[in-house]
Amino acid sequence: MSKQPFPILSLFMAATAGRNMTRPAYAAVAFGIAMMVLLTVDPAYESAHRWVDAVLWACLAFFVFEWAVRLRHAILLQRGLAYAFSFRGLVDLAAAATIPAALIAGASPKSAWLLGVVWVLKLVPGIPGLRQLRRVMVVESASLFSVLVIFLMVVFLASVAEYFLEREAQPQTFGSVPAALWWAVVTLTTTGYGDVVPVTPLGRAVAAIVMISGLGVFGLWTGILATGFAAQTRRDNFLKTWESVSRVPFFAELGPTAIADVTNMLRTIDLPPRTMIIRKGQQGDCMYFIAAGAVEVDLPAGKKVTLGEGAFFGEMALLGSATRNANITTTVLTRLLVLDLVDFRLLMARHPELGRTIDAEARRRALENK
Amino acid sequence: MSKQPFPILSLFMAATAGRNMTRPAYAAVAFGIAMMVLLTVDPAYESAHRWVDAVLWACLAFFVFEWAVRLRHAILLQRGLAYAFSFRGLVDLAAAATIPAALIAGASPKSAWLLGVVWVLKLVPGIPGLRQLRRVMVVESASLFSVLVIFLMVVFLASVAEYFLEREAQPQTFGSVPAALWWAVVTLTTTGYGDVVPVTPLGRAVAAIVMISGLGVFGLWTGILATGFAAQTRRDNFLKTWESVSRVPFFAELGPTAIADVTNMLRTIDLPPRTMIIRKGQQGDCMYFIAAGAVEVDLPAGKKVTLGEGAFFGEMALLGSATRNANITTTVLTRLLVLDLVDFRLLMARHPELGRTIDAEARRRALENK
Amino acid sequence: MSKQPFPILSLFMAATAGRNMTRPAYAAVAFGIAMMVLLTVDPAYESAHRWVDAVLWACLAFFVFEWAVRLRHAILLQRGLAYAFSFRGLVDLAAAATIPAALIAGASPKSAWLLGVVWVLKLVPGIPGLRQLRRVMVVESASLFSVLVIFLMVVFLASVAEYFLEREAQPQTFGSVPAALWWAVVTLTTTGYGDVVPVTPLGRAVAAIVMISGLGVFGLWTGILATGFAAQTRRDNFLKTWESVSRVPFFAELGPTAIADVTNMLRTIDLPPRTMIIRKGQQGDCMYFIAAGAVEVDLPAGKKVTLGEGAFFGEMALLGSATRNANITTTVLTRLLVLDLVDFRLLMARHPELGRTIDAEARRRALENK
Amino acid sequence: MSKQPFPILSLFMAATAGRNMTRPAYAAVAFGIAMMVLLTVDPAYESAHRWVDAVLWACLAFFVFEWAVRLRHAILLQRGLAYAFSFRGLVDLAAAATIPAALIAGASPKSAWLLGVVWVLKLVPGIPGLRQLRRVMVVESASLFSVLVIFLMVVFLASVAEYFLEREAQPQTFGSVPAALWWAVVTLTTTGYGDVVPVTPLGRAVAAIVMISGLGVFGLWTGILATGFAAQTRRDNFLKTWESVSRVPFFAELGPTAIADVTNMLRTIDLPPRTMIIRKGQQGDCMYFIAAGAVEVDLPAGKKVTLGEGAFFGEMALLGSATRNANITTTVLTRLLVLDLVDFRLLMARHPELGRTIDAEARRRALENK
Repeated sequence: MSKQPFPILSLFMAATAGRNMTRPAYAAVAFGIAMMVLLTVDPAYESAHRWVDAVLWACLAFFVFEWAVRLRHAILLQRGLAYAFSFRGLVDLAAAATIPAALIAGASPKSAWLLGVVWVLKLVPGIPGLRQLRRVMVVESASLFSVLVIFLMVVFLASVAEYFLEREAQPQTFGSVPAALWWAVVTLTTTGYGDVVPVTPLGRAVAAIVMISGLGVFGLWTGILATGFAAQTRRDNFLKTWESVSRVPFFAELGPTAIADVTNMLRTIDLPPRTMIIRKGQQGDCMYFIAAGAVEVDLPAGKKVTLGEGAFFGEMALLGSATRNANITTTVLTRLLVLDLVDFRLLMARHPELGRTIDAEARRRALENK
Repeated sequence: MSKQPFPILSLFMAATAGRNMTRPAYAAVAFGIAMMVLLTVDPAYESAHRWVDAVLWACLAFFVFEWAVRLRHAILLQRGLAYAFSFRGLVDLAAAATIPAALIAGASPKSAWLLGVVWVLKLVPGIPGLRQLRRVMVVESASLFSVLVIFLMVVFLASVAEYFLEREAQPQTFGSVPAALWWAVVTLTTTGYGDVVPVTPLGRAVAAIVMISGLGVFGLWTGILATGFAAQTRRDNFLKTWESVSRVPFFAELGPTAIADVTNMLRTIDLPPRTMIIRKGQQGDCMYFIAAGAVEVDLPAGKKVTLGEGAFFGEMALLGSATRNANITTTVLTRLLVLDLVDFRLLMARHPELGRTIDAEARRRALENK
Repeated sequence: MSKQPFPILSLFMAATAGRNMTRPAYAAVAFGIAMMVLLTVDPAYESAHRWVDAVLWACLAFFVFEWAVRLRHAILLQRGLAYAFSFRGLVDLAAAATIPAALIAGASPKSAWLLGVVWVLKLVPGIPGLRQLRRVMVVESASLFSVLVIFLMVVFLASVAEYFLEREAQPQTFGSVPAALWWAVVTLTTTGYGDVVPVTPLGRAVAAIVMISGLGVFGLWTGILATGFAAQTRRDNFLKTWESVSRVPFFAELGPTAIADVTNMLRTIDLPPRTMIIRKGQQGDCMYFIAAGAVEVDLPAGKKVTLGEGAFFGEMALLGSATRNANITTTVLTRLLVLDLVDFRLLMARHPELGRTIDAEARRRALENK
Repeated sequence: MSKQPFPILSLFMAATAGRNMTRPAYAAVAFGIAMMVLLTVDPAYESAHRWVDAVLWACLAFFVFEWAVRLRHAILLQRGLAYAFSFRGLVDLAAAATIPAALIAGASPKSAWLLGVVWVLKLVPGIPGLRQLRRVMVVESASLFSVLVIFLMVVFLASVAEYFLEREAQPQTFGSVPAALWWAVVTLTTTGYGDVVPVTPLGRAVAAIVMISGLGVFGLWTGILATGFAAQTRRDNFLKTWESVSRVPFFAELGPTAIADVTNMLRTIDLPPRTMIIRKGQQGDCMYFIAAGAVEVDLPAGKKVTLGEGAFFGEMALLGSATRNANITTTVLTRLLVLDLVDFRLLMARHPELGRTIDAEARRRALENK
């Protein structure tokens, strides 16, 4: 480190090389995209073209630099090729290279900068839950594909029918099957611009059937995705929770069947520091286990108690009165396991030994706070 | 009470200070909003501007008064700050203060009264099921957010593509990326005004893909919400029912596992007084337990029997013939636990002792009515 | 019967008095509605006004007659009032009385006949599954209502915002809040006629948010209905199946828990006479129990065997090869209980004694057909 | 074979006679449809009409030939009639005969070739998952039909109401009930062309209610399909998996109840040759059993191991660290059974003997690779 001539640069490089997007990267994408949009608004661009150009070049320089740093970092870890041909690597390369390539190929600057639209793809790896959505798509791909084929068939049959019925009445708009296809897509997706509309009675009757079929396609599509999503949510929640359950000593004494059972009941949430989890006086319908991090309890008498990993809280509202009797706030980034009342009751019923542990702790706390 | 100079006012203040919206408050919102709308319809306003102004001022006065009363009430209960910064408190303040503030700041009366639109927010705390919807949103927020990001990305990529393809053919409507963004949002939400429509063949091909993607976004969004809603409904029903089950002596002898099991089978409904629950001669497919309130049974011979908290009825249609043999009506606000036939059978099978109790009671009633 | 002067009329009256709609009634509704529509198409009406008028008067006469017959029938059964104030009775009365009332009140014949639109309500009691839909609506009414309130709030807030932002640019279309409300409803339902469209940049930004909210409202609505529908389907299927299971001797030896278990696995279908249930050579993935009616099996050697109530068939494809080896057709209206392969396996596993019965029967049949 | 004068033709005939569509058939449909579309684009057709005509005649000849070959093949197998009247047989006949029939009947060539649209139906039997969609439709047909009837009723009532309210203001567009019906369908499906729009205040109020009802119809439709789809997916998955489970010796020792249990946990996927299943370094959350086919494991030391039918892999990521430690690729068309982590845990808990088998194998492999 000390040998490097530019310590700030090396720090920056370390930050850039990491897996997740850094704040400068988000800023570069945001500014770059904003300037690219501004470039196309003639009055705005004319009055500030120097600034716009400067920001665009700066963003481009940043992306080129970022790609180079990441590639170097990957090569040092002997993963050069893996990075270069991964989705991230290709997006980084596209963000760095397409605009210079277009400029060299002789495109006008305005058109070349339009290619800055690829910068938006840099946000893709940062989208939470994208992996989940992609898996739903993959699992349900056969069904979704067959709905798409049915959709395209209806579009095609409808457009030929309308071409046949409307070509004489409206030679301008229904003069060929491709023109009728445009009408069919606009109609079947229920977009309905109104630029191409059937006017003959038979054409309208066919169009009415097409529109109603459109609802059916919608319904099928949604039904498939809803089904897939419900299954995927269950799986993902189990994966996230499974790992955390093992860190809570409270569950340690359970056998493997019971652990799987408990895991299905819990839900994982991650909270940033200084977030209020429980507000005094609110209605309580769940209790919490701390899988990682820590929380602070503001007791009535002005005392403050900190609970760490493995502790639980919020059980009193489930056992006695339903109102919370203290404010509880996270102190650091905290992962909690949430147990809803419905599952709390089931858990207590199926595993009475856990119920006794919670009862004892609740009694101890109630005594202490008196 | 007797010391106060205006007993009616004090009564009114007591009513206003409560948690739920009172009828005068609903009326004030309704009239205020109606007059605010009328204010913008020139012919109507010109012919009746005195009345409109009078009602508006009266509503404003009511909201100022209401806020003051509630704040005083909260301060007396030593909850002044909690109320002032709660959602309700802030809405009450906004309803009372925005219009005077705008008038003082020099806005024209017509524009100032437009701010009366915030009065509609006073209805928010009274919406049933809002809490449930909000929790679904919170639990599924990560998934919904990622669909939103995908939606915005598709919108952006589509608008740049269309700007590129259509800017020469239609410089008026596709002359800049912001203009194309408007087209993309209108299209991807399948609204399709038709004010901006691609005309080039390639532009239309891209637009067709965008429309079909729109259906996919719809489907994902709906699938996520449907999944979240199903889970939330199960939880909410358990919470509402759990509390009521304990009030029914019939279930008292069950152990904790069985109670959780039974709670999952029951559904809670609240009925206003004088509502007919069972009509003689109808097909019956459920029985009822009274968790709170009372019902009146019109027996065939003209006798009337009243059943109170903890009693059950409607079991005869499930045991013997499927038709109801008496009219049953609530006498007061009543909370019932509904047990559907499917769950009745399961319950009888799993807990034969409950079945015997119901059988004995049904036989007793049948004998009595002969 | 023999005393009546018009035996045909009495037969007709008997048919008309029944609960379900008769064919003449469907024909009267269809012809009446068709003529009412034709009445409004000027060229068609002018060329055939005698026929149109004649059919309309005939339909009206039929409905008056039908109402009178049904009322008389109900009075004879001492249910006169019950019929008169039931939904059916009121619809029958409306179908018979509104048009004469309008003519007497002095409406023009064309306007009066338009009221024939109420005839379409006579179809309502005949819609299959309407009861199911209504119950879903009732159970989920609180959630649906709160989505509706949110929808109306968004509509209202959006329209006031657009009125504020667009009133100067487009005084014709956004000149008052009611006009802006029209825009908001058209937009939030994603209908998007395009007759009223925001043009200012800020107005368009607000409109974009409104459109995206529209997708959310859609999603919530659908999610609620999907959840409610899934629960209701489960309940309805149980109700229909429960009754039939008891008629099949095969299940008679099961205890009550097992019966409830089996009922959840079966699905009821009703088939008209002469419907082919199993086609030779097809892939089989379910077996059938006959709850009511009879089926005919075309054995390979040209023999025909009839199976009646309580028998089962289709089990061979589930036990051995997956292809069906005989055509099986209903002979009368038949109610079948369908057991899918997935549930067949579970049933065999949980209740081995049933498996042995099916195995024995399958072996006996296989021997017989050799 | 050797007796036939045209061996290539006989080979082609053998390929054509099979159940599934061949590549030439897909190409013929694609080219035929493309040329049919081109035929309607006047400038394109004029410049290349010879080519277009030639391809169209060639496609037609192919379809005639295909139908003849298939019919002959079916007759040889004594299934001539079955083929001729099956869906496939009728589509093949339509593809071969409609255009010649139209030409003979005297239609203009351009109109006759438009009938080539029926060629697209040849793709129907090849759509994956169509059977599944059809069964959902059949099972839910009663509910879907009743929603359709409600939809049509709302359309009819709305159009009569709008005809009544708008006929004087807009005699051109709302001059008859059929014209108003067009408006109602366009509105209730939320298509909203904007060619027919109510302008009177009352007409707009009715239209607003119609639009909101449209959302409800959407929701019901989707809810029904989603419910049906979820049930059907469960059934289909069981069917596909059941057959495969029996081929995996690992599950052979389980009793029938456990087999049904395991089958519900597994998911079947079919993969083409040379597909990478597991990539080294990825996160693993499932393990695989080979139901048919074979896979190749690239071990760290450069060794390659082939696993065949009945083997399992991917279990190490579930037992120890979550990252995959080898690339695994299919060598031939392979059917895998996927066991997700959530179900893996449950399986291990419920059937500890399976857990021990997997543990032993994992330990053996870990030792081997050291």
